[in-house]
Amino acid sequence: MSPTPSRARVAVIGATGYTGSELVRLLLGHPRAELVAITSESRAGEPFSAVHPAFGGLCDLPLRRMEEVPALKPDLVFLALPHTVSMDAAARLRPEGIPIVDLSADYRLAGPDAYAAWYGTEHRDPEGFAHAVYGLPERHREAIRSARLVANPGCYPTATILALAPLVEAGWVDGPLVADAKSGVSGAGVKPKETTHYANVADNFRAYGVAGHRHTAEIEEQLSLAGGAPVTVQFTPHLLPVDRGILSTVYARPREGAGLTAERLADRYREAYAEEPFVRLRAEPPSLKDVRASNHVDLHPVYDERTGMVLVLSAIDNLVKGAAGQAVQNMNLMLGFAETDGLRLVPLAP
Amino acid sequence: MSPTPSRARVAVIGATGYTGSELVRLLLGHPRAELVAITSESRAGEPFSAVHPAFGGLCDLPLRRMEEVPALKPDLVFLALPHTVSMDAAARLRPEGIPIVDLSADYRLAGPDAYAAWYGTEHRDPEGFAHAVYGLPERHREAIRSARLVANPGCYPTATILALAPLVEAGWVDGPLVADAKSGVSGAGVKPKETTHYANVADNFRAYGVAGHRHTAEIEEQLSLAGGAPVTVQFTPHLLPVDRGILSTVYARPREGAGLTAERLADRYREAYAEEPFVRLRAEPPSLKDVRASNHVDLHPVYDERTGMVLVLSAIDNLVKGAAGQAVQNMNLMLGFAETDGLRLVPLAP
Amino acid sequence: MSPTPSRARVAVIGATGYTGSELVRLLLGHPRAELVAITSESRAGEPFSAVHPAFGGLCDLPLRRMEEVPALKPDLVFLALPHTVSMDAAARLRPEGIPIVDLSADYRLAGPDAYAAWYGTEHRDPEGFAHAVYGLPERHREAIRSARLVANPGCYPTATILALAPLVEAGWVDGPLVADAKSGVSGAGVKPKETTHYANVADNFRAYGVAGHRHTAEIEEQLSLAGGAPVTVQFTPHLLPVDRGILSTVYARPREGAGLTAERLADRYREAYAEEPFVRLRAEPPSLKDVRASNHVDLHPVYDERTGMVLVLSAIDNLVKGAAGQAVQNMNLMLGFAETDGLRLVPLAP
Amino acid sequence: MSPTPSRARVAVIGATGYTGSELVRLLLGHPRAELVAITSESRAGEPFSAVHPAFGGLCDLPLRRMEEVPALKPDLVFLALPHTVSMDAAARLRPEGIPIVDLSADYRLAGPDAYAAWYGTEHRDPEGFAHAVYGLPERHREAIRSARLVANPGCYPTATILALAPLVEAGWVDGPLVADAKSGVSGAGVKPKETTHYANVADNFRAYGVAGHRHTAEIEEQLSLAGGAPVTVQFTPHLLPVDRGILSTVYARPREGAGLTAERLADRYREAYAEEPFVRLRAEPPSLKDVRASNHVDLHPVYDERTGMVLVLSAIDNLVKGAAGQAVQNMNLMLGFAETDGLRLVPLAP
Repeated sequence: MSPTPSRARVAVIGATGYTGSELVRLLLGHPRAELVAITSESRAGEPFSAVHPAFGGLCDLPLRRMEEVPALKPDLVFLALPHTVSMDAAARLRPEGIPIVDLSADYRLAGPDAYAAWYGTEHRDPEGFAHAVYGLPERHREAIRSARLVANPGCYPTATILALAPLVEAGWVDGPLVADAKSGVSGAGVKPKETTHYANVADNFRAYGVAGHRHTAEIEEQLSLAGGAPVTVQFTPHLLPVDRGILSTVYARPREGAGLTAERLADRYREAYAEEPFVRLRAEPPSLKDVRASNHVDLHPVYDERTGMVLVLSAIDNLVKGAAGQAVQNMNLMLGFAETDGLRLVPLAP
Repeated sequence: MSPTPSRARVAVIGATGYTGSELVRLLLGHPRAELVAITSESRAGEPFSAVHPAFGGLCDLPLRRMEEVPALKPDLVFLALPHTVSMDAAARLRPEGIPIVDLSADYRLAGPDAYAAWYGTEHRDPEGFAHAVYGLPERHREAIRSARLVANPGCYPTATILALAPLVEAGWVDGPLVADAKSGVSGAGVKPKETTHYANVADNFRAYGVAGHRHTAEIEEQLSLAGGAPVTVQFTPHLLPVDRGILSTVYARPREGAGLTAERLADRYREAYAEEPFVRLRAEPPSLKDVRASNHVDLHPVYDERTGMVLVLSAIDNLVKGAAGQAVQNMNLMLGFAETDGLRLVPLAP
Repeated sequence: MSPTPSRARVAVIGATGYTGSELVRLLLGHPRAELVAITSESRAGEPFSAVHPAFGGLCDLPLRRMEEVPALKPDLVFLALPHTVSMDAAARLRPEGIPIVDLSADYRLAGPDAYAAWYGTEHRDPEGFAHAVYGLPERHREAIRSARLVANPGCYPTATILALAPLVEAGWVDGPLVADAKSGVSGAGVKPKETTHYANVADNFRAYGVAGHRHTAEIEEQLSLAGGAPVTVQFTPHLLPVDRGILSTVYARPREGAGLTAERLADRYREAYAEEPFVRLRAEPPSLKDVRASNHVDLHPVYDERTGMVLVLSAIDNLVKGAAGQAVQNMNLMLGFAETDGLRLVPLAP
Repeated sequence: MSPTPSRARVAVIGATGYTGSELVRLLLGHPRAELVAITSESRAGEPFSAVHPAFGGLCDLPLRRMEEVPALKPDLVFLALPHTVSMDAAARLRPEGIPIVDLSADYRLAGPDAYAAWYGTEHRDPEGFAHAVYGLPERHREAIRSARLVANPGCYPTATILALAPLVEAGWVDGPLVADAKSGVSGAGVKPKETTHYANVADNFRAYGVAGHRHTAEIEEQLSLAGGAPVTVQFTPHLLPVDRGILSTVYARPREGAGLTAERLADRYREAYAEEPFVRLRAEPPSLKDVRASNHVDLHPVYDERTGMVLVLSAIDNLVKGAAGQAVQNMNLMLGFAETDGLRLVPLAP
């Protein structure tokens, strides 16, 4: 890696979505990052604040086209693009030697075959996988430091993998794991559609993507890696009438003879996350507002003696630790900054 | 049972809570029920509509004290009282020979020992259990018809038992079942407290009562009855930022050799609920608004070939099928009315 | 008018929107109405419940095309179509002699010129205005009884006109009136768009259509009629993060020498609405949930001695008294039914 | 004033409410403020994060009693106490010479008589008024700089005064002004009560404090000061189902001959707020999320040629510009810091 710059010049590719605007929000408050460009093919020329009025006076940068970015020689680019679009941008920018944090799903899985199987389309940059590191710092910190292409994890996988990895790693679980996850609506994107229409969401609740949501693959791959053996996960996402936040409630049946107790479970999680700046082990079930607008992961593991089962509650903000915050955390690692730079965010409650 | 009256004179004991007002809403629209009294010890003398302004001009009955009710010789009384209070009312009214539908938890469990264990207090009417029938018509219709004391089921148990009973009855499940349930706030009652404070609920989500919620006992008892063998349930309730509704997502690992397939699962549920007027088998995951303000239970059973697991989504309105609607359904059975009288309610969406 | 039928065969033209589904909800519970057809050009052939899953088992009528309706010889049709589309349907159905309640804006104004001025398009059925009666029963009951084409009022105008008419009629106001109105999102329709995208509405609030919303014309026309002189209204709608409901807060500066007092104001409103089955004069400011899912209009007039001004708070459910409920009220008048038939709806709270 | 310290040691008196926790959130991110104490009489000894779990790991300071504060010699204290309690704390701390920003209502009005009239209780520190400066920097910046006791304005007055002052100052208005204001629930405080019970607020909306809310006095006093003549305001607050945010929609009838035009109005507001770091003049009606979690005031003035009236839309976050943010802005002025230190907050949307 090159010597650490004191400040980094960064670009955000894709400005109209929520991950783009959240990245800009975080980067404006980052002590060592300077936003040199934000791009949007559809709104190029307009100020960023024309697309996101809340930024008026705070970020009025004119939006550029992506093709103008390489000439600016940024120290790092964030790709805040939809999956299947992001791979083309990554393929074009990688040869320029610019470090990339890709917030899409395009490089998260093991390789092009898994991608084709779960995303239903051929990957157009199969070589990219050889360069990509799965950007979950709590699992792959060292690899991220030297990576040139970081695949920023999905929101559900971030909450779910961090909830389950210590259990799986300890070899304590038997048979399929259950991840019953609930997400705020911002995870469905900025574009109006039936599923995000106010009256369909407010005062309402439903499951979707039952027995087939794509994040299943990401969760299973990472947990299999953690456990050294294939792990199956029954993952069920639900849509909450809230803007932000994911709560993943995971259930595991301990392996026969695992000898689990409440104490051993607590010790395992304490040990696993002792040094983690963003993981908080909570004595009570966490709520979404405990982490809203911050980069925290709040975990509450429970061993139920009566049933013999383990459950873990895991809360994140899907746009921060589940997207833009984790991307900045990855940037910090890649550029040699302190991992918490720009991320000492106080949750917004109420 | 006495010959069916053409109209029934009924009383609602306990008027200030949500189950009380929901009962009044439903009874006002019931073709064969006449409300002869509503009681409230704390607001006696005031019109019902002073407590619930939405009823102005629709129900202005002056609230009475419970002690005045027997003299009115009602055909049936509903107890819409808190648990531990309801048992005293039931004990006082039972000798009068008045049929009772008790909406509290006081007579739902098998007997006073189970009650003491889960509710942490001695039962003051232990003989009551001998008379009580668990008021879930889809499971105990015939017993309800001739009962004098019906214990109206809890909201979570209603959604969860109906989701799991066909599976358990078929002997298809192995090991603890998982019931991940999410409820609207009205289930927590009309009284302001920290957990129902707007800013603690809105745009928020959390689990509570983890590994110990009292409804666990009710669910396990009824499913053990259905399966003819003890059933363990890992039940986790969560608080949704919505007024009404419960979605229970249940997970079961099939017994080795159960030979389950998607078709067999679908057949099992169709068979189990073919004649039920309020159970709808849905081709898509149901949402809370599909059942809001109605007495329906919407079920969506899924067999996931990939994981080998079964999940069932179950949606009800906690104040209707989970409380007042089911109570009216029980009244209809007890008084020989058509089971759907007063309950042909169209869900309110949006 | 023909002799009153004991039951009426009615059709709903336009099934996919919220006014259409709300009409079906109300008509299913109407003791004297029979739904003979529901139409949708885009979903013809599918059952109504395929478009609105909450109606599964309650209304599975196959959707028809509008052209099939005349042959069914309905006693009345409701047009639940967008404005500018509705006029074509009305023009086609009027010659058949079928009484029409049009829920669109197409015949609400005085004539085609006003329509063109406020709606920015020529009216294609200018003769229709000669037949149309403004369907606000509290103002035009007798005319509605004998009308063949009733223009069902807008939601904002219903709440605002009923709040102001007694004041204006008494000749008590001077200068422009202020109507600061707040509406739930269902008023914006079933079609997803940016303004109804969950994250743009939830936990949010904004004004729109400032100094130019089309309902201004309707309000001013009707109030001018009531006062016998031109009335100007500063009407400002706002979008509330709720599904249903309108609260209109209106302000009037009394005319010099009007001699207004709190008592005279209260008397005026009592007198104006003494016989109205759906208007409730409230001692406290009404809330949306006091009227939700019901046909009530709750009014709270206040004279502020300190400032000398009058304000009136007016609450309705925009889909019921502001649309489908009022349409059924108009049907009842047109067909000689009791005005409250099918409309004794208890508000849903919570 | 003493020479500007490079860093200030500050204390927050009163930690359990929302203004207290919001102050802590802002001060943790302030480059020149150091939190030396947070107090709570009821929770003294517990860590701050035990009261506000979202602050776990971010602020675990043990809560102290107020009496311990003077010995710490803070450079400034914030009083985040209820009105009528705050005056006692101010009276005790003032003699110590510690600069005070009081977030309660206790010193906002002109003097003890006005206080007694509007708050219904005698003021126990009447001399305090002589020292107090009304802490609205956009109106009283210079006085604040040298003040030792700053009365931080109410949330409604902040939004409403800034909306109306330029109009009133120009002498353009005639007769009572109308301020129709809508607030999020956090303004009602942290303590559960009927008006903040989830089911009473969610999916609901109502006015309260009609024709008598205490903030009327504050608004009228400040506007009278701005205009040099008594101003009357018809102020009507409403409760929105949102956590944070106030939108005040104000209406003014221009004085005969004022010669107002859209251009003159726009010019007036541009001129009035040209140098203000937190006031944004918006081309479109602002929404609450445009300012959420930030210190901005977004204004949208409109002259309606058709009616001859002026309206102004004004949006703030009631906990930031309406409370804690404005308090920090006042601290910055009092201690000689840059006014925007710690307040370059990006609004949180969604």
